[in-house]
Amino acid sequence: MKRRIVVVGANAAGAKAAAKARRINPRAEISVIDRGSFISYGACGIPYYVSDTVTDVKELMSTPVGVVRDANFFKKVKGVSVKTNTEVTGIDREAKVIRLREGAGAETSLPYDKLILATGSSPFVPKIENVGLKNILTVKSIEDAELLKESALSCSAACIVGGGLIGLETAEALRQKGMQVTLVEMRDQLLPGVLDPEVAAAVEKHVKQQGVTVLTGCAVTGFAGEGTVATVLVGDLEIKADLVVLAPGATPNVQLAREAGLAIGTTGAIAVDQMLRTSDPDIYACGDCCETTHLVTGKKVFVPLGSTANKQGRVAGINAAGGEATFAGIIGTSILKVFSFNAGKTGLTETEARANGFDVETVLSPAPDRAHFFPGAKPIMLKLVADRSTGRILGLQAAGEGAVDKRLDAAAAAITFKATAEQLSQLDLAYAPPYGAAMDNLIVAADIMKNKLSGHARGISAREVKRKLDEEEDFILLDVRSPAEHGEIGIEGAKLIPLGVLREKLEELPRDKEIVTFCKISLRGYEAQKILDAAGFTNVKFMDGGIMAWPYKFRDR
Amino acid sequence: MKRRIVVVGANAAGAKAAAKARRINPRAEISVIDRGSFISYGACGIPYYVSDTVTDVKELMSTPVGVVRDANFFKKVKGVSVKTNTEVTGIDREAKVIRLREGAGAETSLPYDKLILATGSSPFVPKIENVGLKNILTVKSIEDAELLKESALSCSAACIVGGGLIGLETAEALRQKGMQVTLVEMRDQLLPGVLDPEVAAAVEKHVKQQGVTVLTGCAVTGFAGEGTVATVLVGDLEIKADLVVLAPGATPNVQLAREAGLAIGTTGAIAVDQMLRTSDPDIYACGDCCETTHLVTGKKVFVPLGSTANKQGRVAGINAAGGEATFAGIIGTSILKVFSFNAGKTGLTETEARANGFDVETVLSPAPDRAHFFPGAKPIMLKLVADRSTGRILGLQAAGEGAVDKRLDAAAAAITFKATAEQLSQLDLAYAPPYGAAMDNLIVAADIMKNKLSGHARGISAREVKRKLDEEEDFILLDVRSPAEHGEIGIEGAKLIPLGVLREKLEELPRDKEIVTFCKISLRGYEAQKILDAAGFTNVKFMDGGIMAWPYKFRDR
Repeated sequence: MKRRIVVVGANAAGAKAAAKARRINPRAEISVIDRGSFISYGACGIPYYVSDTVTDVKELMSTPVGVVRDANFFKKVKGVSVKTNTEVTGIDREAKVIRLREGAGAETSLPYDKLILATGSSPFVPKIENVGLKNILTVKSIEDAELLKESALSCSAACIVGGGLIGLETAEALRQKGMQVTLVEMRDQLLPGVLDPEVAAAVEKHVKQQGVTVLTGCAVTGFAGEGTVATVLVGDLEIKADLVVLAPGATPNVQLAREAGLAIGTTGAIAVDQMLRTSDPDIYACGDCCETTHLVTGKKVFVPLGSTANKQGRVAGINAAGGEATFAGIIGTSILKVFSFNAGKTGLTETEARANGFDVETVLSPAPDRAHFFPGAKPIMLKLVADRSTGRILGLQAAGEGAVDKRLDAAAAAITFKATAEQLSQLDLAYAPPYGAAMDNLIVAADIMKNKLSGHARGISAREVKRKLDEEEDFILLDVRSPAEHGEIGIEGAKLIPLGVLREKLEELPRDKEIVTFCKISLRGYEAQKILDAAGFTNVKFMDGGIMAWPYKFRDR
Repeated sequence: MKRRIVVVGANAAGAKAAAKARRINPRAEISVIDRGSFISYGACGIPYYVSDTVTDVKELMSTPVGVVRDANFFKKVKGVSVKTNTEVTGIDREAKVIRLREGAGAETSLPYDKLILATGSSPFVPKIENVGLKNILTVKSIEDAELLKESALSCSAACIVGGGLIGLETAEALRQKGMQVTLVEMRDQLLPGVLDPEVAAAVEKHVKQQGVTVLTGCAVTGFAGEGTVATVLVGDLEIKADLVVLAPGATPNVQLAREAGLAIGTTGAIAVDQMLRTSDPDIYACGDCCETTHLVTGKKVFVPLGSTANKQGRVAGINAAGGEATFAGIIGTSILKVFSFNAGKTGLTETEARANGFDVETVLSPAPDRAHFFPGAKPIMLKLVADRSTGRILGLQAAGEGAVDKRLDAAAAAITFKATAEQLSQLDLAYAPPYGAAMDNLIVAADIMKNKLSGHARGISAREVKRKLDEEEDFILLDVRSPAEHGEIGIEGAKLIPLGVLREKLEELPRDKEIVTFCKISLRGYEAQKILDAAGFTNVKFMDGGIMAWPYKFRDR
């Protein structure tokens, strides 16, 4: 008898699973059920549709050659039958039958041999006062996007609730439509969970420069308005807004699985093994509705992403069709373009690494993204996180107007294979001046990490320097840049001795005090530390990342 | 007593070695000797100086913050003494002394405890007729670049001898100055040793579109002219040229090492161990003058590159200073920007893999470099090479107007760690529409490789299809694109059945013939293969890379 495979959800994971199952098993009967009317679309492209960067919504639903992936396409090309506007209302695991209802029609049933749950995730909607007012929207589906675009036509002031990836992308989209935009984030930084505070601060600075008002550490407590939202309440603060987008994060759609008695993981998403089997061996789950393993910590995580969904769909499809495939896990790679700024991470942030008990060393390394003499070179900042005891690279964050994505991808591969700082520093990366410096940013960061791990280089964070200054600790903050650089921008209280004359001016420095050196990016700062070490100074450090990583006020001029 | 470290050569490797030695050993006496007058410059930037993309030569010799790295800089900042315009004429290993001559001065000597040879490489100058004529130049040093720029002012027709990285970069530079440019390459493709023929063909096409005349399979036999070159002779062919650039490759500068009796490797470069020690344990070599190990083949190779030189300089500097470091080797990563085209490789090409005895499988996968709906997406072609018996990825080539560098870097990391196609396909790469598709080009290529290795997908190269057509073999070439695509561009002799109606039109295809399917990039071609397989056809393949990888003439319209 033909194997009957039923897939619930026809987006990234579900569509991929169905297509792959067909290729593996040409004889199977494959059905896909989706409650929406649009299927197999690039949900990650929705903010770009909202901003009119993508003008035709069909582009989000097309193959690269322009064929729309609708039910007819799936039938003709993939040999898969798709039912849209159909809700799956229950699973009878005993009888191996699902119950479904098309539109407002009567409940019918569909038997399966193997069931694949690809029910996705939904925007989390906080239960706060008046959250049901008109023009309080989410951005997840194409229907959401259409509504948001239509609503935006008659609105002028938007408030985005949530400073994560979607919140920021939506803030950009609405700003590009000429709206006033305020972004409110409950945590005290943008992109919590994605970036460490000092890297997130760079994103915040850029977003503010583009005219977005950013409020961090502020919880939205409610909304007010006559039928339609007019005000966002943040404690005593009132923000005028005729359009609100809720983007406080995603929550996995697990109701169907839970009601069927399938195991839900500690993350709240459906629990699966490496073959993406749920607690019922005839039911698989893939994509945003299931949890996965973080390959650095070994812990279960819920990180909904289109890239992961596609990989998982392939695995679930193969297994449901009778083949054998596994999905090992993820390392938490994320990336964001917001205006002309790029920021992302792979592996663990410093915050995550510490929370997971690692003995952490970090490097902040700002530098141009290609040979500095090559036109168009743009600055990027790398933050590398390593485990002190093994030298293993735990994570990389990258932010700036330049090419951060390729450093993240190379690091993602290295971290997957448990590379040490030593190994990272010797990667044979593609070099020519239009693509990077002879020593790529990643190699430089790895070299600094090696210097730190071996004790040759001793760093101190900008935050710690700021604290010392604020508490008027007795130490010397030594600027080793040129007088011109020092004159242009500086830190209050710093003493200037350019690196080029440092060897001659050692007597100007007291030997009994702590000295913290810095330059623009701290390569000269490190050089200065080495010169002072060699001259017998015993308490010298450099400030990580130099003045480019100084997130505070500069010296008054 | 202070350790005396002498470095011969003050460019990438030598400068790096001296600086690193100083940091490791603050007490050592460190001297660097260079025969040129410019030191520590970005030699890879020279073509961009020739084209005036980089206008001030000082930019090539500066740190990213604009400090010129001259002898004074090395003395003041690095605590390293540099002698320029000084030739090292010999090494007395017994006495541990080098002989040197500054300019036309008398020979002096300098003792060393540890010696580092960073003598670099020189452009290979073929011994052909009249190669000494005026305006027959090379591009290696800043002096070369100045001469070339000056000569170009009064010239209009340039001939570049050699279609490697430097030859192509120089062709672009001179073309951008408005000159007529002819490039002559002895081998029958551009970039031999760097790219496989079909990938190199894409580079050649682009370069020709930019108005460069390309002659491959043509050996320059001599030159003619009255004092100054006027004609390049290629057998019976005469090419008018008032400027010739010789770029047939680099040769390591090993004379000093050879005369001192140091071991020279099979590649012709100085033999070194992992610590970069030569056959004399007190003498190190690093950079373009020494050979290294290819980490995929395990064989010794000579691949001079600025990125490798910097890494090696660090290792030689540490070891000479009394520390301990190793340089594992390279995987042959190279990249080139020529006009608006990017092309490169990491690991082995198919040609190299076969020559090294691997049982090779390949994938050609063309696709946009970011989400196809995102503005600015540009096509790139990936060629993945794997070992059939282990599934291990041996190499990646990437070419196109889009972002090839990041796919090369991610693959470089994966290949270094001996990733299989399975592992490559599950890398958690950074995904958002501005950076790639939900399934990155690299993931797609790895998935196709898995399908091929498991026997699900069966490819055949465009070359093999062309041969079948030319020899009028009895087979069906099946175009499964849309009628519109088929009408626009096609292959003579192909039959059209769009993928969407293939399931309905199976009776139009004979079951006793070989069928080769194709589409634009061969994802639909693969889909068609699976549909025909499922319908019981037994001899179906798809054409690798689809029509985008067809390097031959298209159907007349």
